[in-house]
Amino acid sequence: MAHDQIETIRKQIDQLNLQILDLLNQRASLVQELGKEKEKLGSNRFDPERERQMLNQLVEHNKGPFNDTTVRHLFKQIFQVSLDLQNDEKKKVLLVSRKKKAEDTVVTVKGVEFGNGSPLLIAGPCSVESYEQVKAVAENHVKRGLRVLRGGAYKPRTSPYDFQGLGEEGLQILKRIGDEFNLVTISEIVTPGDLELATQYIDVIQIGARNMQNFELLKAVGRLNHPVLLKRGLSATIEEFIYAAEYILAEGNTQVMLCERGIRTYEKATRNTLDISAVPLLKQETHLPVFVDVTHSTGRRDLLLPTAKAGIAVGSDGVMVEVHPDPDVALSDAKQQLNIPDFNTFLDELIASGLYKGEAVTTRR
Amino acid sequence: MAHDQIETIRKQIDQLNLQILDLLNQRASLVQELGKEKEKLGSNRFDPERERQMLNQLVEHNKGPFNDTTVRHLFKQIFQVSLDLQNDEKKKVLLVSRKKKAEDTVVTVKGVEFGNGSPLLIAGPCSVESYEQVKAVAENHVKRGLRVLRGGAYKPRTSPYDFQGLGEEGLQILKRIGDEFNLVTISEIVTPGDLELATQYIDVIQIGARNMQNFELLKAVGRLNHPVLLKRGLSATIEEFIYAAEYILAEGNTQVMLCERGIRTYEKATRNTLDISAVPLLKQETHLPVFVDVTHSTGRRDLLLPTAKAGIAVGSDGVMVEVHPDPDVALSDAKQQLNIPDFNTFLDELIASGLYKGEAVTTRR
Amino acid sequence: MAHDQIETIRKQIDQLNLQILDLLNQRASLVQELGKEKEKLGSNRFDPERERQMLNQLVEHNKGPFNDTTVRHLFKQIFQVSLDLQNDEKKKVLLVSRKKKAEDTVVTVKGVEFGNGSPLLIAGPCSVESYEQVKAVAENHVKRGLRVLRGGAYKPRTSPYDFQGLGEEGLQILKRIGDEFNLVTISEIVTPGDLELATQYIDVIQIGARNMQNFELLKAVGRLNHPVLLKRGLSATIEEFIYAAEYILAEGNTQVMLCERGIRTYEKATRNTLDISAVPLLKQETHLPVFVDVTHSTGRRDLLLPTAKAGIAVGSDGVMVEVHPDPDVALSDAKQQLNIPDFNTFLDELIASGLYKGEAVTTRR
Amino acid sequence: MAHDQIETIRKQIDQLNLQILDLLNQRASLVQELGKEKEKLGSNRFDPERERQMLNQLVEHNKGPFNDTTVRHLFKQIFQVSLDLQNDEKKKVLLVSRKKKAEDTVVTVKGVEFGNGSPLLIAGPCSVESYEQVKAVAENHVKRGLRVLRGGAYKPRTSPYDFQGLGEEGLQILKRIGDEFNLVTISEIVTPGDLELATQYIDVIQIGARNMQNFELLKAVGRLNHPVLLKRGLSATIEEFIYAAEYILAEGNTQVMLCERGIRTYEKATRNTLDISAVPLLKQETHLPVFVDVTHSTGRRDLLLPTAKAGIAVGSDGVMVEVHPDPDVALSDAKQQLNIPDFNTFLDELIASGLYKGEAVTTRR
Repeated sequence: MAHDQIETIRKQIDQLNLQILDLLNQRASLVQELGKEKEKLGSNRFDPERERQMLNQLVEHNKGPFNDTTVRHLFKQIFQVSLDLQNDEKKKVLLVSRKKKAEDTVVTVKGVEFGNGSPLLIAGPCSVESYEQVKAVAENHVKRGLRVLRGGAYKPRTSPYDFQGLGEEGLQILKRIGDEFNLVTISEIVTPGDLELATQYIDVIQIGARNMQNFELLKAVGRLNHPVLLKRGLSATIEEFIYAAEYILAEGNTQVMLCERGIRTYEKATRNTLDISAVPLLKQETHLPVFVDVTHSTGRRDLLLPTAKAGIAVGSDGVMVEVHPDPDVALSDAKQQLNIPDFNTFLDELIASGLYKGEAVTTRR
Repeated sequence: MAHDQIETIRKQIDQLNLQILDLLNQRASLVQELGKEKEKLGSNRFDPERERQMLNQLVEHNKGPFNDTTVRHLFKQIFQVSLDLQNDEKKKVLLVSRKKKAEDTVVTVKGVEFGNGSPLLIAGPCSVESYEQVKAVAENHVKRGLRVLRGGAYKPRTSPYDFQGLGEEGLQILKRIGDEFNLVTISEIVTPGDLELATQYIDVIQIGARNMQNFELLKAVGRLNHPVLLKRGLSATIEEFIYAAEYILAEGNTQVMLCERGIRTYEKATRNTLDISAVPLLKQETHLPVFVDVTHSTGRRDLLLPTAKAGIAVGSDGVMVEVHPDPDVALSDAKQQLNIPDFNTFLDELIASGLYKGEAVTTRR
Repeated sequence: MAHDQIETIRKQIDQLNLQILDLLNQRASLVQELGKEKEKLGSNRFDPERERQMLNQLVEHNKGPFNDTTVRHLFKQIFQVSLDLQNDEKKKVLLVSRKKKAEDTVVTVKGVEFGNGSPLLIAGPCSVESYEQVKAVAENHVKRGLRVLRGGAYKPRTSPYDFQGLGEEGLQILKRIGDEFNLVTISEIVTPGDLELATQYIDVIQIGARNMQNFELLKAVGRLNHPVLLKRGLSATIEEFIYAAEYILAEGNTQVMLCERGIRTYEKATRNTLDISAVPLLKQETHLPVFVDVTHSTGRRDLLLPTAKAGIAVGSDGVMVEVHPDPDVALSDAKQQLNIPDFNTFLDELIASGLYKGEAVTTRR
Repeated sequence: MAHDQIETIRKQIDQLNLQILDLLNQRASLVQELGKEKEKLGSNRFDPERERQMLNQLVEHNKGPFNDTTVRHLFKQIFQVSLDLQNDEKKKVLLVSRKKKAEDTVVTVKGVEFGNGSPLLIAGPCSVESYEQVKAVAENHVKRGLRVLRGGAYKPRTSPYDFQGLGEEGLQILKRIGDEFNLVTISEIVTPGDLELATQYIDVIQIGARNMQNFELLKAVGRLNHPVLLKRGLSATIEEFIYAAEYILAEGNTQVMLCERGIRTYEKATRNTLDISAVPLLKQETHLPVFVDVTHSTGRRDLLLPTAKAGIAVGSDGVMVEVHPDPDVALSDAKQQLNIPDFNTFLDELIASGLYKGEAVTTRR
């Protein structure tokens, strides 16, 4: 008896489902039409006043069994998906997204292709300290077929009394090394005023973790025609990271690369916690090259090799790692940089794992 | 022109809103009816098979502009609020909630009222180490008009080689002290097998942070008729904390008190981060007494007084703090316990702040 | 027998302790002397090369039972405290610290004293949207005896497509309101290039959470002679926060105030987690005024009053809260701003709690 | 002139360094001797009273330039390393550590070797729901050469009103399936009272994340002679995880395996944050097999494959993943389980990556 009763009610519910669906789609069409009319008037803004009126009217006419809170909640959802329908078109306009551009962005600098499917190694000292220091690293790069050299000229440091980098002198060293050894150079810039200068000296401008939401810097770098490597903020969500990249693309600069570098968590065995699943997420959501900085994420030499393997296996476009001719006397990050022999061992084992093929083929032309 | 057009469309949308509302409420009534029929059959479980059928049918009939994903999403929402309508009655059956019981729960033990609106002080050593040690604290309690004494007999310790508490001997000491000084005693129990024993020795059973989701322990303590103090887990959400308390009430025990004790975050200046806003949230959502453990949340003697003030000002039913006759030689938590003179100063300043009135009036009868 | 033996060994250890102490202090004196000699040469930098030589020499001469790692560790500690001895003098030079300046810094603007021991209320809309909007709030301020008005002209937003504030127009509105109603105005500035302008329009420059480690902005604001309110970063440690303030003072600007605004944690019941114990920590470590932003830390209207009470009880110099004439239609933070009647109730209850005295006496002159 | 002076002082410091080293090693020898004497007396406990006396004596005799705090700090360090010298022997006794046992622990069950260097796949439904459901998965296991089947019989759920598992009936189903298909079965046990029973039905007992610090359960499982898989707690540090395993080994059970399953962070794009660097850390610190649960760490089907690749590349002994014949109607974790065809694709791609070799060779005998 009850079974039959249940079947009857279920059929009635099925009927209602379809009626509701029909009305919802009618409503959606009207909202789309409305959007177009409003656009003609140039007033395409979300209108909370109108939303409040609709909610009030609905609550006024609500006879239950849904209570008013539920009605408000449910219609907020309906309003939201209708707005999303408009925004979908906008989101197709989210310039970093796969929806906007399905194929991978490849950034080419001095013949090196970032994001072409073959993982790269970005290596170099934490800070540029002298011409000799960077040259020692560069010579090894050339020996090992590497093409990308990082080095910090402006160092954002927690304390104002710590070594702040060589500044322009550091950029000049990088320029000279880049030219002499035909290497792509990457260095962090921390304020809009230095960007002009930087484009003359270095090949890729890095925006560091602390500046990921320095929106004025993002906008300024977005107005350049110069490759950018954007690092994830210390506790930025994936969504915030994507929007930070969007700030750059929205200004016109499409040569943007992303870098996961660990997030701040309670765990203190590592300097930060490498969020490895951020890589496939960013690759799915955006068309930009994605790198993994194993040095800053772990802060430990003994974890660089396994995390580099993981970083490539998970689908990144390459790994960033710090190497210094004499880490013990480095002016910053002494404990986490590899010396050159250890770096070469790291490289050998990474190649031996089969995950990293080396760069000779891709880049020697 | 466009303005008129906009007005026309808006009116059509208003119309559709009301029609949709009407159908949604019709649907909700049917779902309620269905729930009753299913209850007759004893099969009140959520039926995902049926849900899938409905979604398939809807997608099959969807003609847009909403895409199928949006239709699925929107109807999942509609199904959800309809289910919630059933669960609302269940949630009114969420025993810890204000919806179930508007007035504050007051737990009375040996004449002490926990949660009666007048904040209490729960104090005592981290671990019970000897009769003399606890007696020294108890004598001061009596002098200062305090009535509630905490002390650990079973100590959950990170390492198996650390001092694990005196066990039953510790409970016996608490029993003796509680009787001799007419104090309410609180101590942590860590496994179902010890509960029976514990009810004979101590007045309030504490469930510690590490066991907040030890559901078998919660159920077992729920079957007792004995007051319980439940501490928030190291990284439990407020929602998980509330549900943990519900596990106890669901088994019949209504004498439950909650204790915020700091959560695990990246910040290392304090042992944990005191989540002060958890207190008003828990007071809003539940009818249970809520305490603040300032010792474990901060782990620093120099922060006990200001956080105790904050804990009372924010609306808690009292503060828990550790005091030890000789903290420097304590077998656990040496760095964060107050000695007796410092505890008395703490008490004086708390009273001087006007936030804490002392317990003489409430408890001296 | 063993007991006697133990006593004998202990006496030998005591003897060695004192000898070690003596040598350590001798060593420390030499290090101090060395520091002075090096200063004469202008080379006061930490010398890792020398440190490595010493460690090598020690390890070479180590005969155990300590292993080489322990010897390195222990002497690194000894080197560290010796360096700290030099830095202590530097740290006495840490300009924000109580060691440098024992008495509280009081920042006085238009007769309002920030940090004079009597808590203030900083209130106003999230964004400046129009003259009328801000005026509505300002009129209520005057009625209620409040003197400090906040309002955002430049809004750092996650998405580049969200409302970014009125910019200079917003600052102009604040200037006009500040003059007409004799209110102190606070507004966030996000890039060095806008600072010059800002000093002409607003009384206090706010550095927002996202820019707490935008060191170039900190340095630029440090070169002004204008009050600054520095907010804690989303996941900044207390130590990083203190150093960020130091960046400002190191450039000469001493009119700096701090603001705790919640940190990012796993808990999602609130927008952020108010780190209430940060307030007494900052008051202990620094001499600067410290405020609590209850709006951004909780993100919930229902928690503003209890957390404001906690914020004052814990020892802050005041509370920041958002109020908007019509929050439902606000262009940002719609869900967390109070409307004016609710704000007045908030104010009434805060005064009724006895924790907040109102500002009439302090500021009406 | 100053240069010579510097050299002279440096030589004096070098001299002092060696003298201090000599005295420290003398002291360490005495402490070792003392430890042995105390052991004879059976009182090997750390003696804080004695430590305090020594510190008082030192401070009393301190003439600077080190201040008393520094002296206390430095000698606490010296005491600590001396104690560590005793504990080192203890730590060599930390049973899980590589120091105790250099070679990898291999746990062999029904011919399957966990931890033998060849990564395994542990797969199965979140909850055991019926014989048919588990059989469908098991048949596919056999087809694909897999040997290890997971399935939950006791489900720890946030809410007491959620499906709590079939209990003993679930274990019986696993027993039947394990026998019929020659599979190794793994299931979680949540309370000491059920362990006896469990050993009769299942091959590997899982201790879940919520019970990682349920020390009584750990001790009880430590007294069994039965393989155990211990999952990392929701916000456990690596150190706490290692100590939790030590609780089991300390009771005699050496067949322990570890499983990283993501930690709780602020990031909400994934259910938890997979802490990939925990794997090499655990492999370095312990000799136990280490697995990666990609289902619970990510909570997203679209991330299972890349994180499984990362998990193997980083050096784990295998990957745990959930598969269900009909995930949409699963009684728990509906959104994150793979259906069988998708699971087979997952398997194919994992094999195609070269990181996972399949289990046919290792296990078919």
